[in-house]
Amino acid sequence: MWLPNAPRRVRINEVSVRDGFQIEPEFVPTEQKIALIDRLSETGLARIEITSFVSPKAIPNLRDAGAVAKGIRRQRDVVYTALVPNARGCERALECDLDEINLVMSASETHNLANMRMTCDQSLEQFRGVMQLAQSAELAVSGCVATAFGCPFEGEIAPERVKWAAGRYLDLGMDSITLADTTGMADPRQVSKLVEAFLRWFPGVPLTLHFHNTRGMGLANVLAGLAAGVDSFDASLGGLGGCPFAPGATGNICTEDLVHMLESSGIDTGVDLDRLLGAARELPALVGHDISGQVVKAGKTTELHPVPEWVGAR
Amino acid sequence: MWLPNAPRRVRINEVSVRDGFQIEPEFVPTEQKIALIDRLSETGLARIEITSFVSPKAIPNLRDAGAVAKGIRRQRDVVYTALVPNARGCERALECDLDEINLVMSASETHNLANMRMTCDQSLEQFRGVMQLAQSAELAVSGCVATAFGCPFEGEIAPERVKWAAGRYLDLGMDSITLADTTGMADPRQVSKLVEAFLRWFPGVPLTLHFHNTRGMGLANVLAGLAAGVDSFDASLGGLGGCPFAPGATGNICTEDLVHMLESSGIDTGVDLDRLLGAARELPALVGHDISGQVVKAGKTTELHPVPEWVGAR
Repeated sequence: MWLPNAPRRVRINEVSVRDGFQIEPEFVPTEQKIALIDRLSETGLARIEITSFVSPKAIPNLRDAGAVAKGIRRQRDVVYTALVPNARGCERALECDLDEINLVMSASETHNLANMRMTCDQSLEQFRGVMQLAQSAELAVSGCVATAFGCPFEGEIAPERVKWAAGRYLDLGMDSITLADTTGMADPRQVSKLVEAFLRWFPGVPLTLHFHNTRGMGLANVLAGLAAGVDSFDASLGGLGGCPFAPGATGNICTEDLVHMLESSGIDTGVDLDRLLGAARELPALVGHDISGQVVKAGKTTELHPVPEWVGAR
Repeated sequence: MWLPNAPRRVRINEVSVRDGFQIEPEFVPTEQKIALIDRLSETGLARIEITSFVSPKAIPNLRDAGAVAKGIRRQRDVVYTALVPNARGCERALECDLDEINLVMSASETHNLANMRMTCDQSLEQFRGVMQLAQSAELAVSGCVATAFGCPFEGEIAPERVKWAAGRYLDLGMDSITLADTTGMADPRQVSKLVEAFLRWFPGVPLTLHFHNTRGMGLANVLAGLAAGVDSFDASLGGLGGCPFAPGATGNICTEDLVHMLESSGIDTGVDLDRLLGAARELPALVGHDISGQVVKAGKTTELHPVPEWVGAR
């Protein structure tokens, strides 16, 4: 039987504008970010991570976080979220009336040191301050466990370490958890096992999976997540994003390819694929390079081709 | 539980030299084809489709079929197979002492007309002649049902049509069946359903699945096939291959990415991934363009990166 535990409906969290644009070689102008978010807001996506309230020095590409957050046209059914690294970022986010903020720490101590320049304990201490601000403002908080499926420095990450990180998040009062395969190291069996363990450890806690297609396994990992019952996935328009360790490799899983696969397989995403493809088609002009999405190039499976004339003439 | 019906060991049939090279813009010189096959023969692949005994006018890139078949160094554990379109092709193949030949007809009447320039009944009539020759020579024959998961002209293909085609193959005495997603239209649910139906219709008949990654779903479709119990897959080094309807899209599923996913997930392929990656790394120089394989670019998940010095110095 076809994935007996798979959900009938999946929520998709679009991350291109944050996770993708942050590593683009060129700054994407604020008004173009806003235009893209507004366009994505009309596709039926459940959630859009619109920016990161990080230091402009750390990530110059997202130095316009406040202007983006204030400039977009909100749609009622879309959850607008943003990454927040610390209390200062949370204060900036609170000025923008978001629906949710997203906090990130790596399961790998080494990756957290390299990426965040602090230990995991220091990250959690910062989060404590963020949570006080967020809870006073009744702002929903999602906690992302980065490198949950492997670390490019440490290698395998023990599931117990992921349990520890997610447990600390929940102790701090976070509302939902994302397990992120930050550098595309997850394989389908691992996804299956870690998700099953997570659901045992934290029954009822909303779980999102964040995959990269770095080694071509992104959508297979989604299938493994679906089979284990997960109904929420991060994805990035055109497959934008990536990691500095894999130049030339593909980045985040591609939103339009994900929607195409899910809808073809009878799983409802609520997304208007044609509108999404329309937005994806304009991405290469926006970012100045080709994108890794496949459906944009090949067309949907339902788009048929004319029968060659000489065949019809037989 | 992780894919309860999945096999522990999978056989991989390498098709780059036939399915890939046949549509390359440039002819790959005979000695380079032979060198690549010899190299692939030492990786542990179960089967290699080395060429097609088709008319040199129809596919000039494979005009050296006999020279390739006679020039390679056979390894005992590898099954060497070749595509044969008709009795004339079978006669040529028989001169080369192959282990198996492969016959192809589309489930779609329109696609068969466009691709083979004959009706399905005409294809089957030709196969009758081929089978007489093959059976006299005690040569194994595999039958491939092309467009089994969808036709670019007709769209959906009724499962009953696939059953009809495979049934006719078996009536003719073929030993095994390949269901091919010729233009990358399959989705995971469809794979699951069609494979389950096939196993009910034809219990005990060896089944291979042939997928393309045209719309990014290739390895997810493999996972769906594995979940249904399939243990044999076609794949193409570097993801070579493709179809003329999707310029710019990726082609066949990529052998090294497939092996990487399966081995990471604890499924034995018998393939030495490092040797395979070594061969894949030389493909761009051989064919004169970039290839779609990801693991070649990103490295295996087990290849770690040095910790930044300033992290270690903390």
